[in-house]
Amino acid sequence: MTPATLSAAAAAEAIRDGVLSAEDLVRACLERVREVEPGVQAWQFLDAEHALAQARAADDLRRSGRAVGALCGIPVGIKDIVDTADMPTENGTVLHAGRMPQSDASVVCRLRAAGAVIMGKTVTTECAYFSPGKTRNPHDLNRTPGGSSSGSAAAVAASMVPVALGTQTNGSVIRPAAFCGVYGFKPSHGLIGRSGILRLSRTLDQVGIFARTLEDLALVAEELVGLDLADPDTQPLARVPFGEILAAEAPLPPVIAFVKTPAWDRAEPQTREAFAELVGALGAHVEEVELAPSASETWDWHRTIMEAEMAMNLEPAWRSGRDRLSEKLRALIERGRQVSAVDYQHAVARIAAVREGFEELFVQRYDAILTPSAPGPAPEGLESTGDPVFCTPWTLAGLPALNLPILTTESGLPLGVQLVGRRHFDARLLRTARWLGQAVSA
Amino acid sequence: MTPATLSAAAAAEAIRDGVLSAEDLVRACLERVREVEPGVQAWQFLDAEHALAQARAADDLRRSGRAVGALCGIPVGIKDIVDTADMPTENGTVLHAGRMPQSDASVVCRLRAAGAVIMGKTVTTECAYFSPGKTRNPHDLNRTPGGSSSGSAAAVAASMVPVALGTQTNGSVIRPAAFCGVYGFKPSHGLIGRSGILRLSRTLDQVGIFARTLEDLALVAEELVGLDLADPDTQPLARVPFGEILAAEAPLPPVIAFVKTPAWDRAEPQTREAFAELVGALGAHVEEVELAPSASETWDWHRTIMEAEMAMNLEPAWRSGRDRLSEKLRALIERGRQVSAVDYQHAVARIAAVREGFEELFVQRYDAILTPSAPGPAPEGLESTGDPVFCTPWTLAGLPALNLPILTTESGLPLGVQLVGRRHFDARLLRTARWLGQAVSA
Repeated sequence: MTPATLSAAAAAEAIRDGVLSAEDLVRACLERVREVEPGVQAWQFLDAEHALAQARAADDLRRSGRAVGALCGIPVGIKDIVDTADMPTENGTVLHAGRMPQSDASVVCRLRAAGAVIMGKTVTTECAYFSPGKTRNPHDLNRTPGGSSSGSAAAVAASMVPVALGTQTNGSVIRPAAFCGVYGFKPSHGLIGRSGILRLSRTLDQVGIFARTLEDLALVAEELVGLDLADPDTQPLARVPFGEILAAEAPLPPVIAFVKTPAWDRAEPQTREAFAELVGALGAHVEEVELAPSASETWDWHRTIMEAEMAMNLEPAWRSGRDRLSEKLRALIERGRQVSAVDYQHAVARIAAVREGFEELFVQRYDAILTPSAPGPAPEGLESTGDPVFCTPWTLAGLPALNLPILTTESGLPLGVQLVGRRHFDARLLRTARWLGQAVSA
Repeated sequence: MTPATLSAAAAAEAIRDGVLSAEDLVRACLERVREVEPGVQAWQFLDAEHALAQARAADDLRRSGRAVGALCGIPVGIKDIVDTADMPTENGTVLHAGRMPQSDASVVCRLRAAGAVIMGKTVTTECAYFSPGKTRNPHDLNRTPGGSSSGSAAAVAASMVPVALGTQTNGSVIRPAAFCGVYGFKPSHGLIGRSGILRLSRTLDQVGIFARTLEDLALVAEELVGLDLADPDTQPLARVPFGEILAAEAPLPPVIAFVKTPAWDRAEPQTREAFAELVGALGAHVEEVELAPSASETWDWHRTIMEAEMAMNLEPAWRSGRDRLSEKLRALIERGRQVSAVDYQHAVARIAAVREGFEELFVQRYDAILTPSAPGPAPEGLESTGDPVFCTPWTLAGLPALNLPILTTESGLPLGVQLVGRRHFDARLLRTARWLGQAVSA
């Protein structure tokens, strides 16, 4: 068995124990890249020698007997809207071709501090919006991997790295994780700092993690959450013991709210069938819950905020090179420029009420919300990255969300299950997800 | 001597010592009201019996031997955009005539908890914007008292109450304090909670205090600052010992930056002369400092934010009764409705840079900024409340600002001196003001 398929947790343990070297792990991952990258095309930038040099430095540190971080020697893929001081960061647009950041994003600093090998930069859609990059779905090269964190999801799914970072402003972590059949975790808004990441929307942008096990999500999350001095939405936090909480038994078996959302008419037949079966199998642990009628406006508020904030944040690109932006992105920015300050403020002001509504649901009875990650499996074709509609409400409210790769279609494509947790109870969401995974396999 | 002219600190001490009853103090203040209110017209609502009942309750509490608050028996005037559960709050507009709030604003709760007598509601301009109320300047009934906290400043100046509350979104505390010749203190943005106060602009609205001594400002500020659960811009704070810091000697004599601001061409000749003399008298303690050229845009950013946020927050009034709003306010709201979300966000985003610019000034060398409170003394006539131009930059940046009533014109009108402090160093600003007052009288 190649070490490339190891989980990050298993690999990190083997490295700490001296059973595996970081160099061998990275070599194995690079070997996987050579095999599958011509088809999958997950990487925007990957310098094998630079990755190996980082791995050897990790090995040297370990051999020196000094303390090593929890991710010592673990290769991580980084979405190419996240700044790296030693690699270009092109934000998926020709306008930023060859752009070399001055410094690392705060999340990259944290990964390096934990000993990780920054493997390379993964393909993103144009400015993390809808226009696809080159990446294909590892399960079927004729299908989209989802977006905008396309390369990160595909690289993890194809075992080119055990973990990767992405970001979500609408459905850009959960959707590609669902389409590629890996775990995707987007913690609560403000939990992970965003300085050094292309800003689309301060209100909506959130960092996420891709991995092939829940333990790996916990391992990486533990390193990433906390204060980022340059991100005013983060706060000083005691270290959150994600791994410990994930491994603990819940005091009571969870009760889960199955929420179809007002977007249910967009769910494909195979999704409806799979969820009916899943909900049936979970029996008394799941209750169907309908959101308040006002929930149907959630998508409008999200769109107003996203368009207005992206128009503001991408204004420099629009001013200097709008003719080299895709038609879709240009149209979005132009719509955003038409939004009035009054409508924008109204939309932002609604977030508090939306949060309160969900908070009630969690406080009263439910441990998590169960809902599809996407209308169906990855659509055919590479022109679109699929529909984020089932991600919008929780992204707007900044709730922690998770894709669980526990269902497949009859033809063997991954079908995402999304679990949404109470705001700031992120580790508990992982624990509930572990319970759900075990319940489904039992 | 009537107890009405006592400072709040002296009166509170006399009440605690049993030398003065709260009832006698309030009676004396009501006597002043009978004398001067027909001319000054500072009160929107004042029920003498209700004030006396509160005073008697304070006396009963004191006589019971139980602990009493720092403001036990002290009458306070409350600007009529601040909700009171036992008195109407009409926000200066006929649209809210007779409006009875469900509950007290958080600042009123805090005053009551400290034992204060809520004397009555003071006149505000229409929705705390520019259209004047009925109040006249106690120093000259043919002049404006300034706005929008017109009644609060005038009531304190005329010794109808020792202290009063106001609010400032541009220059609505500092300007009336200057025109009426009293101390006015607007602490840092976020220091005093605003729930239950008519919201014009979350970004700009700030609560302020009027008094006839610096000690009284400290006494009241100590009761008002801290967390307001319903105001997301406040934070949990240890009690700030305003009085103690005010009374302490500075470790070094202060160095003050005299800032003319890009609005200096609007300063009247008597202001220019008075400041030249003041700066000359302070010698080496004052240095003239020029703001960065970008400071001249401060007024534009402030206007964009104020118009956009007022248009959003006053939308219900505008929708239901725009024909009963003044032309000025209607025009403001209509301008605000034209502001784009992109321009609004740009303006809000500039606040951080403006703050940083001022922060540098304070960290490098200066204890405070010295600048006029207004272009000149209170203008003649009652059609306008005067020009807030010298207040705008510090309001935008949320810095603590203070009016010192230490200068007068040749004809005896108050001429305001404004001292601006470092953000979140509010008590130290009071200490510097004490030093300045002593230096000027020496």
